[in-house]
Amino acid sequence: MSKSTKLWGGRFTGQTDPLMTVYNESIHYDKVMHTADVIGSQAYARALCQRGILTTAERDAIIEGLNKVEAEWASGQFQIVPGVDEDIHTANERRLGEIIGTHIAGKLHTGRSRNDQVATDTRIWLRGKLVEIEACLTDLLKAHAGRAAQDIEVLMPGYTHLQRAQPIRWSHWILAHAHAFATDLERLRQLYKRVNLCPLGSGALAGNPFEVDRDFLAKELGFDGVIGNSLIGVSDRDFVVETLQWATLTMNHISKWAEDLIIYSTAEFGFVKSADAYSTGSSLMPQKKNPDALELLRGKSGRVFGQMAGFMYTLKGLPSTYNKDLQEDKEPLFDCVRTVMDSLQIATGVLSTLEINPEKMRAALTMDMLATDLADYLVRKGVPFRETHHISGSAVSLAEKKGLSGIDKLTVEDYKGLCDKFEEDVKEVFDFERSVEKRAAIGGPCRKRVLQQIEEIKAKIAEAAIFRV
Amino acid sequence: MSKSTKLWGGRFTGQTDPLMTVYNESIHYDKVMHTADVIGSQAYARALCQRGILTTAERDAIIEGLNKVEAEWASGQFQIVPGVDEDIHTANERRLGEIIGTHIAGKLHTGRSRNDQVATDTRIWLRGKLVEIEACLTDLLKAHAGRAAQDIEVLMPGYTHLQRAQPIRWSHWILAHAHAFATDLERLRQLYKRVNLCPLGSGALAGNPFEVDRDFLAKELGFDGVIGNSLIGVSDRDFVVETLQWATLTMNHISKWAEDLIIYSTAEFGFVKSADAYSTGSSLMPQKKNPDALELLRGKSGRVFGQMAGFMYTLKGLPSTYNKDLQEDKEPLFDCVRTVMDSLQIATGVLSTLEINPEKMRAALTMDMLATDLADYLVRKGVPFRETHHISGSAVSLAEKKGLSGIDKLTVEDYKGLCDKFEEDVKEVFDFERSVEKRAAIGGPCRKRVLQQIEEIKAKIAEAAIFRV
Amino acid sequence: MSKSTKLWGGRFTGQTDPLMTVYNESIHYDKVMHTADVIGSQAYARALCQRGILTTAERDAIIEGLNKVEAEWASGQFQIVPGVDEDIHTANERRLGEIIGTHIAGKLHTGRSRNDQVATDTRIWLRGKLVEIEACLTDLLKAHAGRAAQDIEVLMPGYTHLQRAQPIRWSHWILAHAHAFATDLERLRQLYKRVNLCPLGSGALAGNPFEVDRDFLAKELGFDGVIGNSLIGVSDRDFVVETLQWATLTMNHISKWAEDLIIYSTAEFGFVKSADAYSTGSSLMPQKKNPDALELLRGKSGRVFGQMAGFMYTLKGLPSTYNKDLQEDKEPLFDCVRTVMDSLQIATGVLSTLEINPEKMRAALTMDMLATDLADYLVRKGVPFRETHHISGSAVSLAEKKGLSGIDKLTVEDYKGLCDKFEEDVKEVFDFERSVEKRAAIGGPCRKRVLQQIEEIKAKIAEAAIFRV
Amino acid sequence: MSKSTKLWGGRFTGQTDPLMTVYNESIHYDKVMHTADVIGSQAYARALCQRGILTTAERDAIIEGLNKVEAEWASGQFQIVPGVDEDIHTANERRLGEIIGTHIAGKLHTGRSRNDQVATDTRIWLRGKLVEIEACLTDLLKAHAGRAAQDIEVLMPGYTHLQRAQPIRWSHWILAHAHAFATDLERLRQLYKRVNLCPLGSGALAGNPFEVDRDFLAKELGFDGVIGNSLIGVSDRDFVVETLQWATLTMNHISKWAEDLIIYSTAEFGFVKSADAYSTGSSLMPQKKNPDALELLRGKSGRVFGQMAGFMYTLKGLPSTYNKDLQEDKEPLFDCVRTVMDSLQIATGVLSTLEINPEKMRAALTMDMLATDLADYLVRKGVPFRETHHISGSAVSLAEKKGLSGIDKLTVEDYKGLCDKFEEDVKEVFDFERSVEKRAAIGGPCRKRVLQQIEEIKAKIAEAAIFRV
Repeated sequence: MSKSTKLWGGRFTGQTDPLMTVYNESIHYDKVMHTADVIGSQAYARALCQRGILTTAERDAIIEGLNKVEAEWASGQFQIVPGVDEDIHTANERRLGEIIGTHIAGKLHTGRSRNDQVATDTRIWLRGKLVEIEACLTDLLKAHAGRAAQDIEVLMPGYTHLQRAQPIRWSHWILAHAHAFATDLERLRQLYKRVNLCPLGSGALAGNPFEVDRDFLAKELGFDGVIGNSLIGVSDRDFVVETLQWATLTMNHISKWAEDLIIYSTAEFGFVKSADAYSTGSSLMPQKKNPDALELLRGKSGRVFGQMAGFMYTLKGLPSTYNKDLQEDKEPLFDCVRTVMDSLQIATGVLSTLEINPEKMRAALTMDMLATDLADYLVRKGVPFRETHHISGSAVSLAEKKGLSGIDKLTVEDYKGLCDKFEEDVKEVFDFERSVEKRAAIGGPCRKRVLQQIEEIKAKIAEAAIFRV
Repeated sequence: MSKSTKLWGGRFTGQTDPLMTVYNESIHYDKVMHTADVIGSQAYARALCQRGILTTAERDAIIEGLNKVEAEWASGQFQIVPGVDEDIHTANERRLGEIIGTHIAGKLHTGRSRNDQVATDTRIWLRGKLVEIEACLTDLLKAHAGRAAQDIEVLMPGYTHLQRAQPIRWSHWILAHAHAFATDLERLRQLYKRVNLCPLGSGALAGNPFEVDRDFLAKELGFDGVIGNSLIGVSDRDFVVETLQWATLTMNHISKWAEDLIIYSTAEFGFVKSADAYSTGSSLMPQKKNPDALELLRGKSGRVFGQMAGFMYTLKGLPSTYNKDLQEDKEPLFDCVRTVMDSLQIATGVLSTLEINPEKMRAALTMDMLATDLADYLVRKGVPFRETHHISGSAVSLAEKKGLSGIDKLTVEDYKGLCDKFEEDVKEVFDFERSVEKRAAIGGPCRKRVLQQIEEIKAKIAEAAIFRV
Repeated sequence: MSKSTKLWGGRFTGQTDPLMTVYNESIHYDKVMHTADVIGSQAYARALCQRGILTTAERDAIIEGLNKVEAEWASGQFQIVPGVDEDIHTANERRLGEIIGTHIAGKLHTGRSRNDQVATDTRIWLRGKLVEIEACLTDLLKAHAGRAAQDIEVLMPGYTHLQRAQPIRWSHWILAHAHAFATDLERLRQLYKRVNLCPLGSGALAGNPFEVDRDFLAKELGFDGVIGNSLIGVSDRDFVVETLQWATLTMNHISKWAEDLIIYSTAEFGFVKSADAYSTGSSLMPQKKNPDALELLRGKSGRVFGQMAGFMYTLKGLPSTYNKDLQEDKEPLFDCVRTVMDSLQIATGVLSTLEINPEKMRAALTMDMLATDLADYLVRKGVPFRETHHISGSAVSLAEKKGLSGIDKLTVEDYKGLCDKFEEDVKEVFDFERSVEKRAAIGGPCRKRVLQQIEEIKAKIAEAAIFRV
Repeated sequence: MSKSTKLWGGRFTGQTDPLMTVYNESIHYDKVMHTADVIGSQAYARALCQRGILTTAERDAIIEGLNKVEAEWASGQFQIVPGVDEDIHTANERRLGEIIGTHIAGKLHTGRSRNDQVATDTRIWLRGKLVEIEACLTDLLKAHAGRAAQDIEVLMPGYTHLQRAQPIRWSHWILAHAHAFATDLERLRQLYKRVNLCPLGSGALAGNPFEVDRDFLAKELGFDGVIGNSLIGVSDRDFVVETLQWATLTMNHISKWAEDLIIYSTAEFGFVKSADAYSTGSSLMPQKKNPDALELLRGKSGRVFGQMAGFMYTLKGLPSTYNKDLQEDKEPLFDCVRTVMDSLQIATGVLSTLEINPEKMRAALTMDMLATDLADYLVRKGVPFRETHHISGSAVSLAEKKGLSGIDKLTVEDYKGLCDKFEEDVKEVFDFERSVEKRAAIGGPCRKRVLQQIEEIKAKIAEAAIFRV
């Protein structure tokens, strides 16, 4: 072997590179998993005892010692030893040794590797957070359902291409978003089941040579099952990817919701106003009130997307089993979980305290938005839709040409001039409430269907409660 | 309104921009959905008839006419009219009108919009493709299970950090990948259920004013249910995102599998060789044989990742309901589906025809890979693992210092000098087959557990068959 | 070596997999580089002749033969042989052999590999496209400069957080976007120089053993220089990544510009209207006119982002020199180039034909937007800004409390009650034009600075013309 | 306005949401810009004084006060007031007011907004970091140049498709990577110029109403120029995107370099070994030594890619000027800068201390790697390359069929049997050193060209030194 003689100088001399220590260690972020690490080790001690690797006394000493370690974490007294405690696993085992002696503590890692340990810890930690996220998501759904029920009288323009299209209920808009969030809930539960599988007992990669009872370990730790291949057990990070993908889509829904509300908050639309708690002023312009919470909710979708894209990029091209690159899973996962949980709560707060301006919404309904209803009127009289579509367009043009404020101002004679199927009752078309109530097929904006949607959301919420028990 | 006088000249004059026609139209790619568009319209005609919008005769004329349109597509005789048939919906309706007359054909679109129509078509098209993908994925799993059973005797090094770690069975490596693909299958089925929901009857955004029976529509079209909010019905593209996310993760698994095999194909490893069908030579170097199929499988994971990332980017920041941006969903989706389907088949072919070199795999097993087994030997004699880990490390060093080829060449006395718990039976440790068989916990590489894994994969395959019926 | 006996059946039998042929071949897309491939080969023939590998007659035969090949491409007569012509290089050499005989044609590839050949072709093709893109970008800048000059009188609200902030000129808004596009032009030119470097003569990876004169090759082919390491020569795709990154940022600028215009196109804002050429109607709603071009421009930013992200993902984890994965560079690059070029032209068309509504812009200016000017008034009288900011806020509140339409309706006495520095001349503050003209520092919205910006954009355009000569 | 009555309960009651405070504030990360914020404000005070907004005494008080603020930061004594100091700008101004009184401090923000302030601070902070990054990158280049010079004698296999291809010098491999890093340096300098532009004086969006001298501000703060449109001044984050894109590509280069070295570090290749400082052992397997630094270098390319992709995603769809979403620029930028800087230094350390095994590299050179040289031999005798390629392939087959260890073991008669142009001197072909030296075109692996490349890298380094002065 031929070493470089470092003619070109170097940043450091000697055997170690202090920067490498920092670059390598994960303790400053993986310490949040201290509880998961402790209970994982306690279960493992029990499993080792079953196999005769630990005596009952040793097992109990380890379990008790780990309780003390956890108590130190809980009380903020745990002292991380810089440069030694490179990760939470090392830190906890080091401290356990100090408390109960290394002769016993040194038996805990038998047949176990940090590879299966960290996978176990991460899954325990994450599943707990997913339950918390589920609660936040359920709260957001409750806010939507409640608000939809409360505001059911309010009509507003529905938009396509951000152009006024047809009148809908404001509650229908609310429930569209609730629908997306309810699907996020469904996906979350499916995801949860894949997170809650036990890798412990996979060793470094090739399994456990002491035949620890992996079914026991899984049961002891509350997992729904065992991961059935040790290579996958230590290296699978699909549960992280899936969580990040799930979060990306959920944040996308929040982002779209926020985008709508930001536009509705403009002076030009004037439909809604964020509560002061979710707004800020300007350092320069005294009159400004900005919907900061909504903008942050929208913007943070990028943060989470980046975490998903970034970690998938890290995974790309890796060979099988454990590679150190996998250590890059934690920071994005931890931050993603926090961001999603915060965002769901902020969104709940924003919606719960949002002021709406039903008069401005109503005022934004214009008669041309009933052009389809006008066409439908003729359809009901037997005219093919493609013709009625054309005739209705002509009515819009005629009203414009006559300088009228809308198609409701055309006379019945005007209408008869466009098509002889028009009769007196055409005037009934020009009623926004009627237009909305006409849309009575499943999933429509009429009162009955809105109430049905609210019940559906409530049913989803109820399922959630059952799930968590 | 004040127009620009175009002082600065312009690319075109007049009322139209020919480039805009091209930029806007989707017929050149969305025509692949012609069948979905036809059956969607046929079901819609039935629903309109139920509501009295069409007579029975009109309904039948439309259904029959659409059958003719479909027949033209099937036989390659359909003539797209450039600049007119901007999308498959327009093309089919235009042609239907020519066949049965516009007076009847013009009634078909009553209460329907291209917004709910395109969402319906895309879901019908996609669910069919997902079933095909499931078949390809099942074939890949069969190839894995079959190969794992056939090659069960073969031992090879297991790696972590791409460094030789512990001996495993080659079949264990195969089954690790099968495990990942089996989970892809599980996710695919969950995804399918969310794809197979019916948006038809959502109108442009505000639902259907003729109260078409959406449950009937869903049943008629083989959907599992109805999308219960019309705004979501027309604008939801989560089913596209989920498909792209699913595909990204599946391609990631293929990519990792390919990465392993590319490394195992090097002259230095020499474990495997791609069949000629999946290799190419060099235009310059006569001796070369390159694993092109594996490299393409790895590389195309980027293509699919880009489609996922790109379409999510398109969705970012869009307001509710339909926006034209959504048209950008189809090209990535179509290409992704094709890429995944091809890749699964190519991977099946590569694995089925792969030559392996068991001798080279065996030769790569070195005695230092049993250092953990040596430590475990002492654990079984009551020495704490942390000490045995150290003692075993010393044995490796001692063998090196003595210039021996491996730790199996140390004498029993040498071992006793390191720890007095060593006895004659230490020699039994130095047996790779024994090491593998010792790893008998669930998910381990021993014969019994490998056979168990094969059965598990077969059970997944069987489920798939049931699912598709 | 042990082959699988394919117990589990297989998709195909025999020595080849027809799907692999399709999966592997690139001719259906890389044929667009036919000209680049021809001129690259002609230059290489000249270089081989210099080194005595070809006689003058052979060289001329090759050059002439390639001219015929190119003529067949140009006239649409070139016949691709399926399953044989896997890529453009193979196709052209095959055809050359048919035209001039393989004895001479077979000498052309001496010392060359498809690895350096494809890199050369791609760079030649791309640089040509970059010049076209530059022209499109310059046209877009001209449209901006022209429109800014023409519409200079028009005032509109400037927004932050999408809330009305301070009055600006519409031209100032135009020039903000022009500024971004001008920077894209600057970056494009820097990028061009890195694209326009010659890899030819790098061989398969280890350079050229016949000492072809690479400086000659570069000069002959119009490259600005030679790539100075053969491993990099064949494998570098940074020029593709850079192009995709450049395009991503440029499309981001177009997307932001489109987002503004889509919002300004709403009925609620009503500032602008797309020309009919860039709008479409609704299949259901007769009154609709949607800004489709703007939405597509916004949406296609995702397509290009996905191409960038996807190709970088493909590159991730690749070892040095040529790997087949690199073949995945072309489809994203080709589509990206087309998308950017089309988008720049469509954007130019949209802006050139855009109708603006200066009255609605003016009407959207409200007196509270002058609150900062009011604070500045006091600053000029010596009151610290932090106090004036507060006082001005109080004036906004007072006007609201008094039910006045704006702060201009408060009396001088009202103002004196808020701060004794107010005098009669406070009334001068309430003038939007004056407010805009006050903002006269460099880069401000006043007339002088807007005109200055127009000159700066024109100077950038002039540079472009020089550059292309 | 109609408020929700919060029937569904809520996370909080009252006027504020404590979570919103945390969600909104940036002080915990943007405090790293304290110096930039201070010098930006000092320059602005000078500019205000020029315009008569501040007296000389006020200006000096502010400058002196800010020096004290900075001193508190520098000494770690600055006390952040929770819930008040939401960002570094607020914190510094609050503290300044405490030190010199708010009557004077309150004048500092005249005509300035946090919008132009934060843009200025970020650019000042970043340009400083780019200079540090340049130094790290230069060090990495020095390590490459030095190592390439030192190890110039060492031959190794060059690979394509990870298959042995042709012999090269190890130094040629080193210089390929140096070439990529040198281009990163070139791009970094171009990027720097676009970062180093002054937005100060852009106000909230509409420019500065006191006509502060923006050229003066730019000069005072060491900027290369002024951003010439105020809307762009406050909202442009292209400089962040460009930095992230640059970093993504640079990390991609590090990642590829690491990938090569990880493969070369396997037992099977055995070419290189990381120094202990950059390796770690296994918690389970005593014999393991893993190239952790290389894996982290490879893995962290994903982190940076995610930051780039994520922030671009945040930007997607934003309207013009400042939106709160832009606050999401800082965390990715700050972490990216740190990651790149650390990674460049770790890579320098790894390369400087890397052990290489020239014997194993040499042993990996096999005679079939000279098959191209054999073909070239015949080319020099006038045989067309396409024929020689075939003949050389036959020689490889013949040697295999005869059970010879390589094509060098075939007799001259064997060769004559393949082609009558073979003569005695064919034996000279079978010499790896000769093969490498034959590749003498520019950019080739022969000694002369390697030395030339080293000089080119040194010239780049020298440029860097000049640049920084």
